[in-house]
Amino acid sequence: MGMFLSACGQNSATSAKVEQAKTPSAPPNIIFLIGDGMGFEFISAYRYALSQPGQALAATPFDEMLVGAATTYPDDDTWVTDSAASATALATGVKSYNGAIGVDSEQHPQQTMMEKARELGWHTGAISTSQVTHATPASFFTHHPSRQMYNEIADSFASTKFGDKWSFDVLLGGGMSYFNRADKNWLPELSQQGMHIVTDYQQLANTQELPVLGLFAPVALPYAIDAQPRLAQLTRNALRLLGEAQAESGKPFALMIEGSKIDWCGHANDIACAIGEVNDFAQALQVAKDFQQEHPNTLIVVTADHSTGGLTLGQGGVYEWHSDRVMAIENSLEVLVPELLTRSRDQWRDYLQPRLNLPMSDAQWQQLLEIELAGSLDRSAHEKILEKALVALISEVTRTGWTTTGHTAVDVPIMATGPYAEQLRGYKDNTEIGKLLLQIVR
Amino acid sequence: MGMFLSACGQNSATSAKVEQAKTPSAPPNIIFLIGDGMGFEFISAYRYALSQPGQALAATPFDEMLVGAATTYPDDDTWVTDSAASATALATGVKSYNGAIGVDSEQHPQQTMMEKARELGWHTGAISTSQVTHATPASFFTHHPSRQMYNEIADSFASTKFGDKWSFDVLLGGGMSYFNRADKNWLPELSQQGMHIVTDYQQLANTQELPVLGLFAPVALPYAIDAQPRLAQLTRNALRLLGEAQAESGKPFALMIEGSKIDWCGHANDIACAIGEVNDFAQALQVAKDFQQEHPNTLIVVTADHSTGGLTLGQGGVYEWHSDRVMAIENSLEVLVPELLTRSRDQWRDYLQPRLNLPMSDAQWQQLLEIELAGSLDRSAHEKILEKALVALISEVTRTGWTTTGHTAVDVPIMATGPYAEQLRGYKDNTEIGKLLLQIVR
Repeated sequence: MGMFLSACGQNSATSAKVEQAKTPSAPPNIIFLIGDGMGFEFISAYRYALSQPGQALAATPFDEMLVGAATTYPDDDTWVTDSAASATALATGVKSYNGAIGVDSEQHPQQTMMEKARELGWHTGAISTSQVTHATPASFFTHHPSRQMYNEIADSFASTKFGDKWSFDVLLGGGMSYFNRADKNWLPELSQQGMHIVTDYQQLANTQELPVLGLFAPVALPYAIDAQPRLAQLTRNALRLLGEAQAESGKPFALMIEGSKIDWCGHANDIACAIGEVNDFAQALQVAKDFQQEHPNTLIVVTADHSTGGLTLGQGGVYEWHSDRVMAIENSLEVLVPELLTRSRDQWRDYLQPRLNLPMSDAQWQQLLEIELAGSLDRSAHEKILEKALVALISEVTRTGWTTTGHTAVDVPIMATGPYAEQLRGYKDNTEIGKLLLQIVR
Repeated sequence: MGMFLSACGQNSATSAKVEQAKTPSAPPNIIFLIGDGMGFEFISAYRYALSQPGQALAATPFDEMLVGAATTYPDDDTWVTDSAASATALATGVKSYNGAIGVDSEQHPQQTMMEKARELGWHTGAISTSQVTHATPASFFTHHPSRQMYNEIADSFASTKFGDKWSFDVLLGGGMSYFNRADKNWLPELSQQGMHIVTDYQQLANTQELPVLGLFAPVALPYAIDAQPRLAQLTRNALRLLGEAQAESGKPFALMIEGSKIDWCGHANDIACAIGEVNDFAQALQVAKDFQQEHPNTLIVVTADHSTGGLTLGQGGVYEWHSDRVMAIENSLEVLVPELLTRSRDQWRDYLQPRLNLPMSDAQWQQLLEIELAGSLDRSAHEKILEKALVALISEVTRTGWTTTGHTAVDVPIMATGPYAEQLRGYKDNTEIGKLLLQIVR
């Protein structure tokens, strides 16, 4: 994927000043960044991916912000949370079951920090790189017994009003297919009521007024590694509009920004994809930090809802993790695998070699080219078999370890800077983050 | 292994006071605890192992101490460190190559914080649950081009003097076979020069005077899960003797305490063993925290040199990690595997069942009982095959993930309380910890 520019700005000297700002009398803006699935190991991987062995480590926007770690377990008979229970904990301060969207274990709706903010006249918003109806953004604005209720979640976003306002001023991400579907197209109605609806990044950049609903893909946005970084520009536009609204009204804003697809790459055990998503997320964080420099009464909190995939940087007993090899990979498996299946096997090596750029042995190529794809299986089964083989191969060549295609129970980082950041120090439970944010909204 | 008592004392209310203590004019005592191989995931596992799903999480002595995370990479063409390079970084503030004991990349000896302390008249010491000649304790007191030079390291401990004093006042752990060996027995000579040599815990408890060399096993101490917790009592006795010496001389002390075998369980991918070692380490930390309550001018720093095994709490796509099942296991694989091999296969289930206490299916038992141990292989090869099979089985039943039998490059926790603790906040490199400790020693 080539070298990124370091996402770090020139702000480390001045950020100490922001960090030290005492609790102000006026409530601060809240920028809450959630790296879905971004456990500690993803940050380690990202830093090493930016760096070269034998040279000084690259800085990342996370570095001086680390203040603690959070437990993430749900109110279920397991220590391993899903994104819904964890987002509900972060949004409401209440533990719930896996699958819960803004409701407790008895399926009772719980007030979210965004709803409290809205009631108090704050400006609110959310950005995600998945569909905006996905578990994390949904849990900050809606209440449903199941994360699978994408249509109902879209309906809630479209129809929930606080007085004459929607629950959000800005909502950006994927998910057009849930707002414009066979049984219901919300867009004309929303537009008529004054919602600015945008569907490409240029339209967003040209938008001068809230409220805005930006839906840039039918479901999720494409992976950063396959398309373009996008979270930073979404963040920049959201902060531009929310900052102007705040200047006008004198009311703070609360914005949730999710790096949704770090988790998806984790589920796929796709390390290059994951690094691309963390980089995208880090760029958005840098935009938030730049905003904070101009507006010091801004709290930035970064955490993850859980870690995904059981990523570790070491595999098969060898004391190596080849960040340079990971960085040489140019596409996600989601792109590579279907493309391979459109080609005959004698074309596979020519197609893959310049996209993986990995020092694979002839034996490794042979193993891949001779993979058994039983004729009776359907295309999706072929994709799974091939994806598994590529994961094993890339893991071996880069020495990347994965233990699961699901989530894990390991604690996740808490990073914070600005007013109240001190209150997130040490080991916390994820509900304590939600409770603090609810307290700050006043 | 049954439930442990939580290692947490009643100190959380008062510890904030200690934490806030401003930098004192007199240098503080330094208690530096290193959990060898104890990445973040080991702390997560330990906390969940102490807790029951659906009930409040157990507190651990680590909780309020977490201040940051450290990168651990060596000065080599890899991001993955060994214990020698990392201990050298922590002891001297200088990056070096894997295998280096207190020397830089050109094999030049680097001053350690213990040596600086000694030169300034401080009291010094180290405790480890491995042999005291192992990489971590060795790197704080000696200088050798290779960690494999166990005999030479023993010679350094025995013969290095600062004036009429050894480099340490107290040195406790395993390793008798390196001090009393075929070509050299240091013990009579050391004894004659005034060293108190003890070989069991009762003798240590009865010891009233420094210097003390305590060697409680030929090589490493047995695992806590198989024998008894031991690091807390070693720590208690070391702090008793060092505390008295400090009261008499007015000089501070520096003590390094290593939970050495967390790493060994990690290499073996033995989760129950690892939890037992982390618990032993946590008990020792609690003893250190109790000492700090009585002697507030004491800095406690806890970190790991690296993480081992690629542990994660989730495996095979299932959203579970069965802490209760891990806690039911009564022995390490190091004990179970050789015992199995002394028995005929028809006795295996009767032997293993009450020691693993795992809900294994008949199919899983069958698989284990039919494992192929080719007749031509030697006993150690049989042990490896059987160990691998048991790791796979225990991992599946408990949903514990491992990715390597070696180390990983993921960042490790930094925990600190007392004077100067604030200076370890955020992401640091492991050399920054060493440099801070060298600064504090004055």
